[in-house]
Amino acid sequence: MTEDKAEKVPQSIKGPGIKKGLVIVNTGDGKGKTTAALGVLFRAWGRGMKVRMFQFIKNSGSRYGEQRAAEKIGIPILALGDGFTWLSKDLEQSGALAAQQWDNCKEALLSGEDDLIVFDEMTYALQYGWVSTEEVIETLKQRPKMLHVIITGRGAPQELIDYADLVTEMTEIKHPYNDQGIKAQPGIEF
Amino acid sequence: MTEDKAEKVPQSIKGPGIKKGLVIVNTGDGKGKTTAALGVLFRAWGRGMKVRMFQFIKNSGSRYGEQRAAEKIGIPILALGDGFTWLSKDLEQSGALAAQQWDNCKEALLSGEDDLIVFDEMTYALQYGWVSTEEVIETLKQRPKMLHVIITGRGAPQELIDYADLVTEMTEIKHPYNDQGIKAQPGIEF
Repeated sequence: MTEDKAEKVPQSIKGPGIKKGLVIVNTGDGKGKTTAALGVLFRAWGRGMKVRMFQFIKNSGSRYGEQRAAEKIGIPILALGDGFTWLSKDLEQSGALAAQQWDNCKEALLSGEDDLIVFDEMTYALQYGWVSTEEVIETLKQRPKMLHVIITGRGAPQELIDYADLVTEMTEIKHPYNDQGIKAQPGIEF
Repeated sequence: MTEDKAEKVPQSIKGPGIKKGLVIVNTGDGKGKTTAALGVLFRAWGRGMKVRMFQFIKNSGSRYGEQRAAEKIGIPILALGDGFTWLSKDLEQSGALAAQQWDNCKEALLSGEDDLIVFDEMTYALQYGWVSTEEVIETLKQRPKMLHVIITGRGAPQELIDYADLVTEMTEIKHPYNDQGIKAQPGIEF
């Protein structure tokens, strides 16, 4: 309940007095779930907070824009161990990798080393049952009080939504691939 | 229509063959509009693109997380000239400042110096009529072909949505201020 006097919080955006780490979920079928998480990561890094991102989907063999940017400024982005993507035919292998990544996440959650951790596209692993939603929530409850966590991905399970502090749904109103046949743009979408 | 051979675009996310600068609108009442724009900025910067952000609302007297982060890595974030916020009682002054900021935006749009420009929370200026939506669209049409533009803010005008390539609506499903009386967290929300 103490005010953080070191931070110059503009009066206009002061909320009520409770301070705690937030569990934030970005879900829905639209763009911007991962991107908004990256924005928070960047903003938090700007304030000198210790931040990390675990990715559950992106192909770690490619160097995406966010990975290049994060590398440049020293934000760890931890991808899965191999070229795992949702085009993978081998679901069993995908499941094993997702479970392994969750072990890394769990260790990070409980380590007390970070101020903000992002679990990017984790919801798919929950949907497939490769990672237990119940275990995720139990682990979130045990994390350090001020640690913020962002979980992204379509179709977040209702239990996770119920537990989270802040949930945003991104909805696609208009998309250039469908409407105009425009290709994905490097630097903008990946 | 030419493929960019220099970029290693993963096969899985290749779209059809058209390449052009996108006009992206992040709107809706939920969180993540500005944050997602920051994420794209960061990602594009990671790919070595030239990026800039113009802010129409944030109090330039405060140093928000994104401004600190952008400063650290040399991304220009151009705020309004004084402590203009939406709590300002002097709407006439607000209008003059918004119009002046639009002049800066217009110059940037036509200069050909950037790969990506963000007009953060510009929609308010459009809603109040301080900046003409028609003029914005006309200027967007005159911009360099490959320049990406992101416009954020609630209540984007329908004409702008019609013109844009990619429109996402952020909807608030659950918010900690309302539900739990939790204050805004430095580094996370600003």
